Amino acid sequence: MSSSKPFHVLQPVPTPGGTPSYETLRASILSEFASRVPSDLYLPESILTNPPKDVTLIPATCGLLTPSELAITSSYDAVALAAAIASRKLTAVAVATAFAKRAIIAHQLTCCLMDWFMDEAIERARSLDEHLERTGTTVGPLHGVPISIKEHMPVKGHYTTTGFLDTRVVSPEDCQMVAILRAAGAVFFCKTIQPQGIMHLESVSVYGRVLNPHNIHLSAGGSTGGEAALIAMRGSVLGIGTDIGGSIRGPAGFCGIYGFKPTSYSLPTKDFIVGGFGAELNVMSSTGPMSNSLRDLDLFVRVVKGAKPHLEDPRLVPIPWTGLGTPVGTEGKGPIKIGVLMDDGSITPQPPVRRAIEWAKAQLEEKSGTSFVLKPFAPFQAARAMKNIRKAYWPDGGKSVRAHIAATGEPTFPLTEWILKDANGPGVEMTASEVLQLRVERDEFRTEFAAHWAAQDVDVVLCPMFVGPACEHETAFYWNYTAFWNYVDYPGVVLPTPVRAGKKGSDEGERYEEDWVPLGEEDEHVRELWEAGDFEGAPVNVQLVGRKWYDNELFGVLETVKEALELR
Amino acid sequence: MSSSKPFHVLQPVPTPGGTPSYETLRASILSEFASRVPSDLYLPESILTNPPKDVTLIPATCGLLTPSELAITSSYDAVALAAAIASRKLTAVAVATAFAKRAIIAHQLTCCLMDWFMDEAIERARSLDEHLERTGTTVGPLHGVPISIKEHMPVKGHYTTTGFLDTRVVSPEDCQMVAILRAAGAVFFCKTIQPQGIMHLESVSVYGRVLNPHNIHLSAGGSTGGEAALIAMRGSVLGIGTDIGGSIRGPAGFCGIYGFKPTSYSLPTKDFIVGGFGAELNVMSSTGPMSNSLRDLDLFVRVVKGAKPHLEDPRLVPIPWTGLGTPVGTEGKGPIKIGVLMDDGSITPQPPVRRAIEWAKAQLEEKSGTSFVLKPFAPFQAARAMKNIRKAYWPDGGKSVRAHIAATGEPTFPLTEWILKDANGPGVEMTASEVLQLRVERDEFRTEFAAHWAAQDVDVVLCPMFVGPACEHETAFYWNYTAFWNYVDYPGVVLPTPVRAGKKGSDEGERYEEDWVPLGEEDEHVRELWEAGDFEGAPVNVQLVGRKWYDNELFGVLETVKEALELR
Repeated sequence: MSSSKPFHVLQPVPTPGGTPSYETLRASILSEFASRVPSDLYLPESILTNPPKDVTLIPATCGLLTPSELAITSSYDAVALAAAIASRKLTAVAVATAFAKRAIIAHQLTCCLMDWFMDEAIERARSLDEHLERTGTTVGPLHGVPISIKEHMPVKGHYTTTGFLDTRVVSPEDCQMVAILRAAGAVFFCKTIQPQGIMHLESVSVYGRVLNPHNIHLSAGGSTGGEAALIAMRGSVLGIGTDIGGSIRGPAGFCGIYGFKPTSYSLPTKDFIVGGFGAELNVMSSTGPMSNSLRDLDLFVRVVKGAKPHLEDPRLVPIPWTGLGTPVGTEGKGPIKIGVLMDDGSITPQPPVRRAIEWAKAQLEEKSGTSFVLKPFAPFQAARAMKNIRKAYWPDGGKSVRAHIAATGEPTFPLTEWILKDANGPGVEMTASEVLQLRVERDEFRTEFAAHWAAQDVDVVLCPMFVGPACEHETAFYWNYTAFWNYVDYPGVVLPTPVRAGKKGSDEGERYEEDWVPLGEEDEHVRELWEAGDFEGAPVNVQLVGRKWYDNELFGVLETVKEALELR
Repeated sequence: MSSSKPFHVLQPVPTPGGTPSYETLRASILSEFASRVPSDLYLPESILTNPPKDVTLIPATCGLLTPSELAITSSYDAVALAAAIASRKLTAVAVATAFAKRAIIAHQLTCCLMDWFMDEAIERARSLDEHLERTGTTVGPLHGVPISIKEHMPVKGHYTTTGFLDTRVVSPEDCQMVAILRAAGAVFFCKTIQPQGIMHLESVSVYGRVLNPHNIHLSAGGSTGGEAALIAMRGSVLGIGTDIGGSIRGPAGFCGIYGFKPTSYSLPTKDFIVGGFGAELNVMSSTGPMSNSLRDLDLFVRVVKGAKPHLEDPRLVPIPWTGLGTPVGTEGKGPIKIGVLMDDGSITPQPPVRRAIEWAKAQLEEKSGTSFVLKPFAPFQAARAMKNIRKAYWPDGGKSVRAHIAATGEPTFPLTEWILKDANGPGVEMTASEVLQLRVERDEFRTEFAAHWAAQDVDVVLCPMFVGPACEHETAFYWNYTAFWNYVDYPGVVLPTPVRAGKKGSDEGERYEEDWVPLGEEDEHVRELWEAGDFEGAPVNVQLVGRKWYDNELFGVLETVKEALELR
């Protein structure tokens, strides 16, 4: 299957170099990956040497996929795929083949994969087809559904890293999440790139830089950027992210797909980070699905929670999943109250974001009155939340990050330096009392914000998911609109809208107002980034957030606003 | 109301002395307390100079309570009191008067109170009576029910400490828990003593030493020892404890009453410890009720959860309370499976504890087969759990404890030294990485134990709640049987049995077997403590434990075993 032709992956902006031994190791890793890709799945060099900004149409035009493979990958969501396989309209082998092929095409265009195993996927799909043939029943609700997995989540027999080259191992076992999905019938076929340290809102690492499929000069977001790019390219129908500051919602929003960050301790994260993650002493990472439809998010949570993962990991809270079927805004309770947060009082979102919120608001207003009402939601101390969470991310002062980097001579990526600048000095650890102080500040903030929310009397909040649409590479600096919700640990879903960023300066709606006054230095910086960049074609998602633990109610509301917001 | 006669409180074992300024301050605090007690509620000196071991009968014989006051305090639980007041069979004033009087009698015999405010209680009760008279409705489900409050929980206008004299303040507001109970109609009348630092299983502090009502030469347990002694004396019908190592279950068990430690984040602890508590970075304290009946525990949780406390403190998990009405062991699921743990493999319980477990087992076996079955439950690494939790209690190496003590020159009590000996050296703080390491060890332990529990296929576990019955003063060293469940954060209820410790050496059943071989040094120490002591009359409780988050199911099981275990 290996080839003497070179295997190319688009990389318009180079990644920083490291020590010679690092470069040798990196080259051997990329070369090993390439050796497993059959040359008949290589994209024509003509495409790669002169790519369009928007690469989302290339899978359909490159000639590598059959009409049937295109239909399978383009026209189904996970719910529909599961139904089609269960009813034998499609075979699991056909589905696995189609997605594995489209994934490697997506990779050449967006650099989204760090592992790819088509043969194993087809083998697994074949055994599922045989099982269905033999028994007449599926092995579970995800029978034959391909699922892509983020780099740091162990899948038996495949590479896993926790964000640094020195942590790269072949996982001896599935982690709990993967085991549950496997038992439900999922087919694994690839693992997707995360950034160095898993702590950027752009996904760039030793494996390369993930590109935004809608505009390759923009970031695909992070830390689950590989997933987002892959799913937006329809190289996967369903993927898994983790989110401690926006790592599901940011990339999903940058790439125009659906993403759900549940309240922490809802879904299993066991063995996701060997040795633990200091930030989680005070801010929990949460894991959740990314997809091309709302109902796929619901399916994912239903299947995983249905496996009673709390019996294996008792940190998980066994609130049963009712999801999209959750009754909300029933007659007795009156209409659902949707708060609308236009900006957080700290950083004004760039123009297309404001347009997207206005669009969503107008769509909802048109249907409001019976099942839901809109009201403004006042921002609450975003700067304080961001200051606190930045400290909370690095209780060890970045010591462990620097040790991992030094271990193999990999370069410190610019966004790693950026995030570490808030750490407690160069490698100075906090004391236990300082960690406790962070806890106290966190809980004070949480109760104050809960009172703020209660005083405004809303069920959910509609808000931006980032300061702009997908940003240019290496500029994902401001996490406000996602990280705030991690700090209070509220569940959030990001939702595609029809809004796209226009051609640079093309349009009145794409400019800051003449009399706009920045709220501060960060706000001014965000405007400068906007004016320096070209965001053409970037999708713009909005975010819907519920109270902590009100994940079911959030989905109940989503079902209610589905038509108004044109959700799939 | 003040008197020139001295106000005496039984204190057979003196507490350690401190600096002169501390002694002066202490004397003024005790004298201020005494000045508020009317002399007609002083017990006769004859009782106090020559008290019996068992002081539980003195309230009925001392002549200070009317027959009606005796009936109110002796014959009702909180559920019955609430019903009697709501139906105007009793007035709130009569109830408040009876309990306030009996509480101050209890205090003279067991030193259980650090604040007492009868006048305020009667005033409040009067307004409740008037409300009921005027409106025909109660203000809430606890209308007129007296509730006693542990020292560190703020009650507006009353003293609160977090375990050290330098933290003593008059609380400007109720904490969330107290506010909820007040809104439900509860009447507050006293606050109860906790130990120095709130971290002993004996309650001894600047306020004095709490005595066990069943045998004043024994400890009432800690840290909620004041509550336990008071409720066992029927000076209160319902009280609140906190438990991070056994502080609800230990004293409840020592004093022969009911106590419930829920899974953490079930009930509100907001503002219980100003400035936070380092241990809670890895082991959460949990708050719960203590009472003289099972259904009172259920009532308490129902009322508090029913107030939706999670809307104010979003750390709380809003799993609705179904309690005693929770369906368990239905036909579809087969009988309830009760695991029986006789010892933890680390410390053998003293003879009466073994008798109590055997009694419970025999009672259950007699009724087993239809609704429940018994099976042995193998112990799991108690020594490892205890080693880990002892480290987890003191991330700051005891620095903060020593600073509080030094601030007023109060003495370091012997059990404070005992618990601090596991701290990270004399005042040496852990680093953030060390705190993280504790977290990783904790979560590994929790998942390993969850697998152990699942492999044994039980719904609940019946086990000891301490290495013995109530221990002699200053010997509450080994927290194994309660702290293990804090380390894994499983909910537990302690239940009275008819078993009592016999007269020293009186009985075959009170001796270790001739061929008994200790499991280790601690085990041998526990035998020595047994052989040195005289435990006559000490009640012996057993503990029933459920899986983390399975608090409702635990209560469902309790309802099912109620008759077999002769629960009230």
